Amino acid sequence: MRIHYECIACAVNQAQKITEMSAEDSGKRRKAMLFVAGKLGELFSEDSIPAVSGGMLFLELYRFLGDDDPFSGYKETSRKLAQRVAGDLGVPVDFKTALKLAIAGNIIDFAVGYDPSKIEEDIIGVTREELGIDHSDELLRALENAEILLYLTDNCGEVYFDRLLLEFIRGRFPDLRIYVAAKDGPIINDATVRDLLEAGFNEFAEVISTGSRLPGTPLEYASEEFRRIFNAVDVVIAKGQANFETLSDLGDSRMFFLLKAKCPPIARELGVERGSLLCVRGGKIDD
Amino acid sequence: MRIHYECIACAVNQAQKITEMSAEDSGKRRKAMLFVAGKLGELFSEDSIPAVSGGMLFLELYRFLGDDDPFSGYKETSRKLAQRVAGDLGVPVDFKTALKLAIAGNIIDFAVGYDPSKIEEDIIGVTREELGIDHSDELLRALENAEILLYLTDNCGEVYFDRLLLEFIRGRFPDLRIYVAAKDGPIINDATVRDLLEAGFNEFAEVISTGSRLPGTPLEYASEEFRRIFNAVDVVIAKGQANFETLSDLGDSRMFFLLKAKCPPIARELGVERGSLLCVRGGKIDD
Repeated sequence: MRIHYECIACAVNQAQKITEMSAEDSGKRRKAMLFVAGKLGELFSEDSIPAVSGGMLFLELYRFLGDDDPFSGYKETSRKLAQRVAGDLGVPVDFKTALKLAIAGNIIDFAVGYDPSKIEEDIIGVTREELGIDHSDELLRALENAEILLYLTDNCGEVYFDRLLLEFIRGRFPDLRIYVAAKDGPIINDATVRDLLEAGFNEFAEVISTGSRLPGTPLEYASEEFRRIFNAVDVVIAKGQANFETLSDLGDSRMFFLLKAKCPPIARELGVERGSLLCVRGGKIDD
Repeated sequence: MRIHYECIACAVNQAQKITEMSAEDSGKRRKAMLFVAGKLGELFSEDSIPAVSGGMLFLELYRFLGDDDPFSGYKETSRKLAQRVAGDLGVPVDFKTALKLAIAGNIIDFAVGYDPSKIEEDIIGVTREELGIDHSDELLRALENAEILLYLTDNCGEVYFDRLLLEFIRGRFPDLRIYVAAKDGPIINDATVRDLLEAGFNEFAEVISTGSRLPGTPLEYASEEFRRIFNAVDVVIAKGQANFETLSDLGDSRMFFLLKAKCPPIARELGVERGSLLCVRGGKIDD
């Protein structure tokens, strides 16, 4: 997905949040936001993928602030809460509920100002909603015929809900080889390889790095090792908006995007109502 | 007032609103926001006055969009509504109420997303509030000793409330020479000279242009004629945030700023709670 007109202001607003989380001093904050202002023209163009240009901006801002992980405290809160809620829920008995829980986990996006105390209530609400685009039957059939699954995670609290879906899949398809990928290092509130290991994904899957800290999975910035695995798998489940942004242009029918269309550009791109829960094959509605 | 860290994102968000008001096509909107992204580094620096850098950005964006007045429809609504509400209220019988009404008019700032239908209710609420900083006694004394007053307007609906204050002053000080200034052409929802003439200010005052379309009154961009008048007057009443931003650094005790501290930077600069109604002499709290 290429840039929409709202992506510039959204990136700047996120940069301001990062700055506020990292620096107390208003002089330092001013310098940081002026640094951001100076970088925008260079990082954003008609061909930009918002998650990539935004991610590059945020990483440059991290360096400018001298802070390698401004979201660390935030992520810790998110992780603990998600772990507790997902633990209480347990592994669902049917595929559709497991899918919806994984999408519900995507709502726990602290990067866009979510209130932690509302999580339990909202998670349960989401499992009652219909999917706006529902290719879940195709996904189940693809898994039935697959030897290798690659699961691309999104945010660090959310992975506890991904774990419920993956445990369901593991139980249903005991011979399936499962790779679960996360970022190589901290970027906004995304899950890192370390987060996956802490959440015990290595107990039932192979944990790998995308080889990059950029949000989503921009293949041109991924490691050779990651790309080799990506090319070899039969099914890819990709969580969240950034994975959609960075992989939807491939039009790859092995791919299933699980996400909530949280912003107008994503909703416009997919032709759905903002807020819709989606399980979309191959990044195109008509695939 | 020099730039605070929040001013960059605020300018970008306003630029997006301008773009949305002016262009329907999402491709044109994207080009416009990319144009904005490319201009930020050039227009904003540590020494920037937010209203000036923002104003320059918006004027460049107007040219890019090929639209000389994206707010024209908005302003028309604002004008009609303000005219009706101010007409119903009539000229107040005491100075303090007249002052508060003029500040209340400043709330009608459609540029930051005000709901027109709430105006009447809010205007009346404001006249009951205490001023957060209250130099109104000094202002009244200054007017008693003045021969010439310069009144710097802000938004185009707001001027109908300015008119109530100025009619009060005209009644109380019949020999006072009164200049009322507005922008030379459209910029966001600011009043222009034409707006003042339409609102009948020439019936009891001399209407002049700042000589610039920039928000506030940045003297280095004003006309010679305007500067000559500015230097000659005994008292200046300056409405709204942009006039504060562009003139507070002068520390000029002839000046009285009437405004609501609508954003965190203005509130921080003046050491007041956000939302405070203010009548501040000379742009400094301790003056």
